[in-house]
Amino acid sequence: MKRILTGDRPTGNLHLGHYIGTLKNRARLQHEYETYLLVADVQCLTTNFDRPEQIKEDIYNVIAGYFAAGIDPQTANIVIQSRIPEIAELTLYYSMIVPMALLKYNPTIKSEIAAGYAKEMTYGFFGYPVNQAADITIFGADLVPVGKDQVPHIELTRKIVRKFNALYGEVLTEPRELLGEVPVLPGLDGREKMSKSLGNAIFLCDDDESIVKKIKSAVTDKSRIHPSDPGHPEVCTVFMYYRAFFPDQVPGIETGCSNAAFGCVACKKRFAENLCAFIKPMRERYFSVRNDHKFLEAAAQRGTARGRELSAATMQAVKRAMKIDYFI
Amino acid sequence: MKRILTGDRPTGNLHLGHYIGTLKNRARLQHEYETYLLVADVQCLTTNFDRPEQIKEDIYNVIAGYFAAGIDPQTANIVIQSRIPEIAELTLYYSMIVPMALLKYNPTIKSEIAAGYAKEMTYGFFGYPVNQAADITIFGADLVPVGKDQVPHIELTRKIVRKFNALYGEVLTEPRELLGEVPVLPGLDGREKMSKSLGNAIFLCDDDESIVKKIKSAVTDKSRIHPSDPGHPEVCTVFMYYRAFFPDQVPGIETGCSNAAFGCVACKKRFAENLCAFIKPMRERYFSVRNDHKFLEAAAQRGTARGRELSAATMQAVKRAMKIDYFI
Repeated sequence: MKRILTGDRPTGNLHLGHYIGTLKNRARLQHEYETYLLVADVQCLTTNFDRPEQIKEDIYNVIAGYFAAGIDPQTANIVIQSRIPEIAELTLYYSMIVPMALLKYNPTIKSEIAAGYAKEMTYGFFGYPVNQAADITIFGADLVPVGKDQVPHIELTRKIVRKFNALYGEVLTEPRELLGEVPVLPGLDGREKMSKSLGNAIFLCDDDESIVKKIKSAVTDKSRIHPSDPGHPEVCTVFMYYRAFFPDQVPGIETGCSNAAFGCVACKKRFAENLCAFIKPMRERYFSVRNDHKFLEAAAQRGTARGRELSAATMQAVKRAMKIDYFI
Repeated sequence: MKRILTGDRPTGNLHLGHYIGTLKNRARLQHEYETYLLVADVQCLTTNFDRPEQIKEDIYNVIAGYFAAGIDPQTANIVIQSRIPEIAELTLYYSMIVPMALLKYNPTIKSEIAAGYAKEMTYGFFGYPVNQAADITIFGADLVPVGKDQVPHIELTRKIVRKFNALYGEVLTEPRELLGEVPVLPGLDGREKMSKSLGNAIFLCDDDESIVKKIKSAVTDKSRIHPSDPGHPEVCTVFMYYRAFFPDQVPGIETGCSNAAFGCVACKKRFAENLCAFIKPMRERYFSVRNDHKFLEAAAQRGTARGRELSAATMQAVKRAMKIDYFI
């Protein structure tokens, strides 16, 4: 059985962007692959080092979100990053073979700085692709389901793996990325990416009232002033959501919008109804466990124990290959 | 009992530069302080990642060198860095709060690049002061006996400690540096620093023949052509060595050289005799254990076990302070 590794920084509740980008895939693939879901609480510190007390709550949020999206914590292994010291070790070893130049032009780092994520560029933030490479390879992952914006990190991981294996022998597995069908979901404000920190997200735990209100605020075709004006669905956020969630309704919406058969208000109302029905079972699953800390902790402990075993075995192989397995 | 932390990257045998810079102090202080000597095999990879098989031999060299210099492995704790995963963990946590700007202008990094140590600037090499800060603080060191060139690293460590303690509470100990009497010993070629990689060093295990030959090659006052020319001891490498090792002979040498009472050949001969007698007991101690791998490994294992206990306790306190002590 091949292995999948993916994960999330616990920075809040999971939203539809996560669902479309990776959660949907993960729920589907958990039965075909040995799945590791890394709750990256250490990486979370790269941008949240000054408010660590929030991280525990967000770990609960993320695990409940996984459960909401159909991930079974008895099947997939939910691993808490800070509980796997081997990841820190492997990060340190990788750091010795990763040239600064390879990190300097990392597009994700650049865009995260532009988006204001990094209050100040720290050494750890600058090098977090190295840490991420350790996350992926410590579990020997074959496949990494990610959004499009993360592809450069997987490429960097492959570069590190190839360099390591060339230097020390074939120890590490080269991972491939697995893109979701609609890799990046736009935000309600029409910005490229739905994101909690941009305040343009619909969460898997949102109630009907919030969903309806948020959809009402979604950016559509700005050139369409009156319902009788023909719309341009290809620039409309709501239309992109139809494509992502209800593809069978796309032809009808496309025609109706272009012909001005209905206006944006009606179109949004219909979409919101669809979406409320779509989110309802996820929200119910979310709240059925969100305050059951025992359940959430047991889920994390089971997966983390399994992840720890695997990590220890990988580090042993890494140290043996590097010939630093003396005095054990 | 206060704690001392210091150490060496295992890159070869220890030499007189190490002795004067720190070993002498360490041997003296091991009875007054709880002493941790870190054999920094992981940091060694920053510049030697492509030849790890040499590191094990160099660990033997370094431990035998400690013993040669009068360090008792039953008193001082000799700790192998790669056996303490908590150092990697703490390095990763520190990396989240260390701005890139603080590392960019590190004078040691600059001079090591100039000296050709870094084949290529890697992420790990660039950040090794962060790793070193973790080395020092994981053992809660109060005092770090170092050469002058390492002082900026101790300053950086204090900055990290202050920032950490301000963010998360008073957990870490702020270390101070302890400079040797003659912090930097010049090389035989007259260059500022004695160093194995510069090929200008006298080792604690050198035999008489090598010592005599090396001293003969030492750079003296270049303006003194004939023995009858008055010399300028203040520019002479051998005179600096007199000051470092035989201070009671300094007045006689200073006068005799300035007055041309003797020439460089005679002066070097006398110094070499002195130095042979000085090194002899160290060399003998060195070779009494160098090939006794059981002894050297037991020394490392004893110290490393003690170091591991202390490191685990520090990491526990760090995680508690950072509030990432959940799900344990």
